[in-house]
Amino acid sequence: MTTTAELVAAVDLGGTFTKLGLIDRTGTVRAEQRVPTKITAGADDDGRGTVDWLGDQIAELAAAGATDIGGSVTAFGVIVPGIIDAVAGTVIAAPNVGWSQIEVAAPLTDRLGLPGAIGHDVRTAGLAEWQLGAGKGVSNLIFVPLGTGIAAAAVVDGRLLEADGYAGELGHVSVPAAGDQVCACGRIGCLEIVASASGVVRNYAQLTGETAPPTAEQIAVAARGGDPASLAAFEIAGRALAEAFTMALTLLGPEMIVVGGGLSGAADLLFGQIESEFDRRLSFQRRPTLITSVFGSQAGLIGAGLLGWRQAEENDSSTDPGRPEGR
Amino acid sequence: MTTTAELVAAVDLGGTFTKLGLIDRTGTVRAEQRVPTKITAGADDDGRGTVDWLGDQIAELAAAGATDIGGSVTAFGVIVPGIIDAVAGTVIAAPNVGWSQIEVAAPLTDRLGLPGAIGHDVRTAGLAEWQLGAGKGVSNLIFVPLGTGIAAAAVVDGRLLEADGYAGELGHVSVPAAGDQVCACGRIGCLEIVASASGVVRNYAQLTGETAPPTAEQIAVAARGGDPASLAAFEIAGRALAEAFTMALTLLGPEMIVVGGGLSGAADLLFGQIESEFDRRLSFQRRPTLITSVFGSQAGLIGAGLLGWRQAEENDSSTDPGRPEGR
Repeated sequence: MTTTAELVAAVDLGGTFTKLGLIDRTGTVRAEQRVPTKITAGADDDGRGTVDWLGDQIAELAAAGATDIGGSVTAFGVIVPGIIDAVAGTVIAAPNVGWSQIEVAAPLTDRLGLPGAIGHDVRTAGLAEWQLGAGKGVSNLIFVPLGTGIAAAAVVDGRLLEADGYAGELGHVSVPAAGDQVCACGRIGCLEIVASASGVVRNYAQLTGETAPPTAEQIAVAARGGDPASLAAFEIAGRALAEAFTMALTLLGPEMIVVGGGLSGAADLLFGQIESEFDRRLSFQRRPTLITSVFGSQAGLIGAGLLGWRQAEENDSSTDPGRPEGR
Repeated sequence: MTTTAELVAAVDLGGTFTKLGLIDRTGTVRAEQRVPTKITAGADDDGRGTVDWLGDQIAELAAAGATDIGGSVTAFGVIVPGIIDAVAGTVIAAPNVGWSQIEVAAPLTDRLGLPGAIGHDVRTAGLAEWQLGAGKGVSNLIFVPLGTGIAAAAVVDGRLLEADGYAGELGHVSVPAAGDQVCACGRIGCLEIVASASGVVRNYAQLTGETAPPTAEQIAVAARGGDPASLAAFEIAGRALAEAFTMALTLLGPEMIVVGGGLSGAADLLFGQIESEFDRRLSFQRRPTLITSVFGSQAGLIGAGLLGWRQAEENDSSTDPGRPEGR
């Protein structure tokens, strides 16, 4: 590339690994890397060390982008798993990274001299699928990544639901298919017990009694080969998802359900089950299209880029001399 | 009254009775009457006769208002049970009044020479409770009237969810407390089978084997007197509501749940049960305040008035010479 590209730095912060990327105005990922997350929270650190580390990582990435791509970084976006006050730029609780009631956006802006924003991981991934991916142009949809856990981002009437960070916890609705199993959250019968990637592994272990069960991917391969226990492990997940989706669509009326996350690679083993449960279960409700995500595991990073671009644009307009001050 | 009051005509159209009222700018009902609904749909009428009848009723009410209250009617609002395209002013389906794919707002405007709007009965009643009643100032709430059936109006991030008319069908989520009973909608285990006013009567009939059971109000009186079957009929309803509310709050994150409709008069028999189920069921979720509606059976009429006032204001500003055209 010989032209100078305008870029934003995007960060998908996880409890184990963190993905960083440079995203251009079209939402294309121009550079991407994965590093182990530095968790500093402990007796003598409230997790601020992780914020500092993040600042260093973004600064390095921005410098590398200037050299490798010939672009300049104008803003940043960081997504975090937990309860996030996006407006204040504060993480209320993110146990996976040891954060509790900590400012994140402002210290990063100070360190980097760039505008930026933070957001919730799943809602921001949903923003990417809605604005640029599977749900482009759709006003009512639910994005559901099936990973280690399950959450959802809901778009209704062309707006992403927030409810102060409490909206969309689809992984923790009770479904009959989960029986009386206890969830990590303390509740009984949560969807994610049986329908997350780890849930499929758990289903398989319970069906076979295996103490060292294979991964969800391996179970999917065996299911495609006709293995009865593997098929049954996915059948339980599919039934649970159909139950939870029916509940969600009865309340939210989506035109589309976008399934993402690692387990969306096994959509061939899940969607038939869900569609046939929809045949049985739906009456007057609007029946949504069932579709897999376009961006897969990059949805979060692309969404973080969108948060960055939004900040860059707000910054542009607030410093635009053509506009009156304070508008 | 000697001053001239500005009023809107509000109509709460039902399958059996229709309530009409005159509402002032503060949302106060200044006149109210109830008339049997004239259903005209049949072999040689597509239901347009009911629209004409509505026009006559509103005209009469407006004339009476001018005489009795000394006010003038500037707009109308009509709420309808069914699937409503409020933007187009069209009823897509309202089986209780025999309407299917019929224009309502425009013919009424032509007949009356007034601006006006139509809306969904439950969402509009929720609008009244949110803007003027129990939920005033709250950005995230669910309004749930418990009547013959159950539906909900959800406010998230300060906006009432519509989803093209499909949002909020809480009465038709499946709950374990409803078992495998079949709903009028054709589905199994819907909330409204056991937790509507008719559901409480059904619970009582099943528990006692009575073929001519008392009304929900009478069962409530007996329950307060300690009658075991009456208490059990409400216990089932309370458990079912707790299950459905837990599901809804996990997805929507409300700060408040406002219970309305006829059965809200038995809140003393339901709320304790729901609160203790919340104690057992909630973990990380935001726990909403549980409260009864302020406007009771008038919520729909007051909401219809708000729809009318909104139209009156839009009309004012579109004809206001101080504003540029088309803004």
